[in-house]
Amino acid sequence: MSTPSSAPPPKLAEIIAIGSELLTPQRVDTNSLIVTESLNMLGVEVFTKQVIGDDRERLTDAIRRALERADIVVLIGGLGPTEDDVTRDAAAAALGRKLEHSAEQEAILAARFRQINRPMAQNNLRQTYLIEGAEALPNPNGTAPGQFLLTRRGALALLPGPPRELKPMMERELLARLKPLLPPQAIKVRSFRITGIGESDLDTLIAPVYTKYTNPVTTVLSSIGDLWVHLRAQGSTEEEADALLKEVGDPIAELLGDRVYSTDNEDTLELTVGRLLRERHATVATAESCTGGTIASRLTDAPGSSDYFIAGYVTYTDQQKHAILGIPEELLAEHTAVSEPVALAMAEAARRLSGATYGVATTGYAGPSGGTETDPVGTMYLAIAGPNGASRCTRIRHGADRYRNRTLATQFTLNLLRKTLLGAIHPRPQ
Amino acid sequence: MSTPSSAPPPKLAEIIAIGSELLTPQRVDTNSLIVTESLNMLGVEVFTKQVIGDDRERLTDAIRRALERADIVVLIGGLGPTEDDVTRDAAAAALGRKLEHSAEQEAILAARFRQINRPMAQNNLRQTYLIEGAEALPNPNGTAPGQFLLTRRGALALLPGPPRELKPMMERELLARLKPLLPPQAIKVRSFRITGIGESDLDTLIAPVYTKYTNPVTTVLSSIGDLWVHLRAQGSTEEEADALLKEVGDPIAELLGDRVYSTDNEDTLELTVGRLLRERHATVATAESCTGGTIASRLTDAPGSSDYFIAGYVTYTDQQKHAILGIPEELLAEHTAVSEPVALAMAEAARRLSGATYGVATTGYAGPSGGTETDPVGTMYLAIAGPNGASRCTRIRHGADRYRNRTLATQFTLNLLRKTLLGAIHPRPQ
Repeated sequence: MSTPSSAPPPKLAEIIAIGSELLTPQRVDTNSLIVTESLNMLGVEVFTKQVIGDDRERLTDAIRRALERADIVVLIGGLGPTEDDVTRDAAAAALGRKLEHSAEQEAILAARFRQINRPMAQNNLRQTYLIEGAEALPNPNGTAPGQFLLTRRGALALLPGPPRELKPMMERELLARLKPLLPPQAIKVRSFRITGIGESDLDTLIAPVYTKYTNPVTTVLSSIGDLWVHLRAQGSTEEEADALLKEVGDPIAELLGDRVYSTDNEDTLELTVGRLLRERHATVATAESCTGGTIASRLTDAPGSSDYFIAGYVTYTDQQKHAILGIPEELLAEHTAVSEPVALAMAEAARRLSGATYGVATTGYAGPSGGTETDPVGTMYLAIAGPNGASRCTRIRHGADRYRNRTLATQFTLNLLRKTLLGAIHPRPQ
Repeated sequence: MSTPSSAPPPKLAEIIAIGSELLTPQRVDTNSLIVTESLNMLGVEVFTKQVIGDDRERLTDAIRRALERADIVVLIGGLGPTEDDVTRDAAAAALGRKLEHSAEQEAILAARFRQINRPMAQNNLRQTYLIEGAEALPNPNGTAPGQFLLTRRGALALLPGPPRELKPMMERELLARLKPLLPPQAIKVRSFRITGIGESDLDTLIAPVYTKYTNPVTTVLSSIGDLWVHLRAQGSTEEEADALLKEVGDPIAELLGDRVYSTDNEDTLELTVGRLLRERHATVATAESCTGGTIASRLTDAPGSSDYFIAGYVTYTDQQKHAILGIPEELLAEHTAVSEPVALAMAEAARRLSGATYGVATTGYAGPSGGTETDPVGTMYLAIAGPNGASRCTRIRHGADRYRNRTLATQFTLNLLRKTLLGAIHPRPQ
C-alpha cells in the first residue's frame, strides 16, 4: 500500500543546548523549538536533543557523538564572554581543530561597543575566536557571532542563546547556508484535532492506516479529553507531498468523522463552537456546578465571544440552584443535585433566564471525594437545552481526579454543543 | 559570607524523555523539571538531559550510554500501549535483560478498566511487561506502571509521561527507593509566592540580599501577575541547611511583607484565598464580565471549595448585567459598563443575590480591541463588596493582550479579596 516517495530520506539533525541554568527545575529549553521549526521546513528531522551544563569535557563528548550520527548539528548557547562559555572550545576540541583569533570579528565587536558607547571588556575578546575553517554568522543583536562549518556528514552551527539573537540568525543566516546542502523537496502538513474518543481507541481506529507509511510522518498528541493527529509529508515536489497527505489523510478523516473538531493547528474546541454559533446566529448560556465556571471561561477566551456568549451561572449549592436557576426544591430533594432531571432543568433555566438559543449545564461529583452508591465520585451529568423544549443529557464517569474530571466535563459539554450545532445529534423534544 | 558546606559531592543523574512529539516545534519537555526538582531534593544533580524520539535503537543506545556515565538514570514516557511506546523494550535491550509478563500487573490493569467501566484493549497488555529484575511502581492515575531497578552505578527508573501520573510516582515511589542509595545530607528549601509587584521591582528589592550567597541557591521565576522566589540550601546537617535558609530567607521575607501570599510551593493564590475565607467563616460570590468565569473557575478548582464559594455570575452584555444582576440601566447608560460605579454595583449585586459575605466583580476591555479615549483597551475595573455596604474598586490598565489582561484581572481581584480578608486593606463604608 505504501507509496515509496521519490524524495530522498530526510537528513537528520541533533540539537544541543548549552547552559547549566537549563538543568534547573525552573527552566525549559525553548530555543530548540525555534531551531526545530526552521529545520523541519527544510525537510530535516531532529532526532535527538540534549541539554548539557557548562562543562567542557561533557560537551566535547556530546558534540563528538553528535557529529558521528547526525548530518546537521546545531549548538545553542555558551558563546558569551565568560569562562563558563565553553561551546567554542568544546566544538573545536570535538572536531580536532584550533580556535583562531579573527581580526575582522574583533573590529566588528569593537565597533559594536563604540556604537553602544560602552567600553569593551577584555574577556569579550573570547568572542572573536573562530573554529579553524568556520565562517562567522553576523549577529546584529548581540556580541557573539555565530559560527558555521561544513563537516564530514554535513554541517555544524554554533548559535547564540538569547532568543532575540538566535531566531534572526537561524532564519536569516543558517537556513540560507543549509539549503544548498539539502536535496530540493516539498514539505506539507495536515492535522486533525479530535475529542470524544480515548487515545487507545483512536489508535486502534487509525493505526491500521498510518502505520503503513513512514512518509507522511504521523504523530498523535494527547491531553485530557483532547487528541491531535498530525501528518507531515515530504515529497520531491509539492504535488507529491500533497498526494501523500491525501493518501493517508483522507482515510483517517473518513474514519474519524465528526469527532474531528478542527483541521488546522489553531482552532481550539471553544473556538470551533464559537464559530458554529456565530455561523448559525445562535447564542449560548451556561449553568455550571461541577465545572465551576470553566466552560464560561473557555467560551469567553476568544476575542469577540460576546457575539455568542450571553451569560453564565455558577451555582455551587442546592440553595443557589433553586434561588438563581429556579430548580424546584422537590426535584432536588427527589433526585439530588447530581442527576439527569436536575442537569436538564439547569440547562433549560440557563436558556430561559438569559434568552440564549442554547443552555448547557454540568452537575456532578468532581472529586476527590463525594458521590453516592449509584453515582460514585467522578459521575457527572452534562446537559443541553435547545429551542422548542428539545434537550439531551449525557452521564459520564471517570476517576476521582478533580482536575481531570472538570476538564473532561468541560470538554464533553462543549462537544455536546458542537455536535448539536452540526445537527449530528438531535436533542429530544419534550 | 557564604558558609562552605561539608556535604559530600553530589551524585549525578541523567534524564531521558522519550517521545517523537517532544521533538516537534510544538512541545517542550516539562516532565524533566518535576524529576529534576525531586532529585535536587536528594542532593542529586542532573548533568544532562535528552529528548529521544520513539526509535528503539537510538533510545537503546542513549540508555546504554547514560548507564555508563550517570549514577541515576530516569526515563520518562514511552510506556503507553501502542507500538510507538518503545521505552520498555529499549531499556531491557540496553541492560541485556528480558521483558517478562507480570500476571499481577495484568490483574491490576484489568481491575482498573473495570473500575472506569471501559473495555481493555488488547494492546494494553503491552503495559503488563516488566524488565527482568525490575520492581513495578504503582500508578494509581494511569494504566502504565513505572519500573525501578538497581544498576551497576546506581539505579534506573522508568516513569510514565503524563504529568499527573509522573509526579505522584516520582514523589511517592521513586524518591523512597533512591534515598537509601544516597549519602545522607540535608537539603532545605524555602519559597515565597508573590503578587502585586513587578519582576524588576522585586529584583531591585531583594537582589542586594541574595546575590551575596551561592548557598542557598536563589531563583526568581515570573509568570503573568505572579512571582516566585525559591531558595535551596545544602548542608551536612539539617541545622546547617536551616541556618543558611534563615540567614537569607528572613531578610527577604521582611522586605516582601504581605506581598507574599504563600510560603510553600503548593498553595496557589486561589487556595490561599479559600483558606482565609474558611478560617473566617466567610463566603464569596463573583460577578464577572471581562474575566468571563475565570475567577469562579479558579476559586472552585480546590476540593471543598463549596465551603466558601456560593455562586458566580458571568454577565457579558449590558442587558444581562441589568437582567441578572439588576444593574440599573441608567447607571450603565451614564457610566458605561466599564466603569467604577458599575463594577461596584456588580460586586454588591453578587453579594446581595447570593447572600455571600463578599462579592467581587470585574468589568473591562480585555482586548485585543475595544476601549474608549478615557478607558483604552486593557482598562479593567476590579471591585469588592463586603459587609455593611463596604466596598472598594481598583482600576488597572495594561496592553491589548487578551489572555494577559484576563489573567491579570483574575490575579488582582483574588489579591484584593486576600488583602481584604487579611485586614490589610479596608473597603470603604458607603
